[in-house]
Amino acid sequence: MIRHNVLFSWKPEATEEQKQQVSIELAKLPSMVASVRAFVCGPDAGLVQGNFDFAVSADFDDEAGFLAYRDDPGHREIVQRYITPILAQRAAVQFEF
Amino acid sequence: MIRHNVLFSWKPEATEEQKQQVSIELAKLPSMVASVRAFVCGPDAGLVQGNFDFAVSADFDDEAGFLAYRDDPGHREIVQRYITPILAQRAAVQFEF
Repeated sequence: MIRHNVLFSWKPEATEEQKQQVSIELAKLPSMVASVRAFVCGPDAGLVQGNFDFAVSADFDDEAGFLAYRDDPGHREIVQRYITPILAQRAAVQFEF
Repeated sequence: MIRHNVLFSWKPEATEEQKQQVSIELAKLPSMVASVRAFVCGPDAGLVQGNFDFAVSADFDDEAGFLAYRDDPGHREIVQRYITPILAQRAAVQFEF
């Protein structure tokens, strides 16, 4: 299996409505992209200072499954419309488990 | 449940042996820390340019379980001995799912 972990931090001017919309849009991905085996995401819980603001954790059978997700047109549209406009920093790793 | 996702990037001078030792040491954590419900980690698969180098993804019943893990003395020792010396960047999020 491949797990894709990506963390976002938001621009200071990002509104609560914009941040919540990211969760709403990303929640559509497991049913939109057939290669997704598990998918969880959410805002940082506020337990630790210095954290990023939002995480996505998605599992796939293999590299091909991840790449199909990464390049899915509906996924790309969500990224471009809802994430990119408020994105300050992004950090990602895909790893086998 | 709380998922703790942390991503590391390593210093350019980090050796393969040092990087592999991080995986070996972190693999001890699920049996060392009672509050860990699920634990996977590994080096970046090399599928995407610009990624961080290593990910840890750990699940806990609740915030108290995560905090017990964060503050576990054996965990802190692994971080100080094996991760901090080769750490360039760190990004983390804890989120409910």
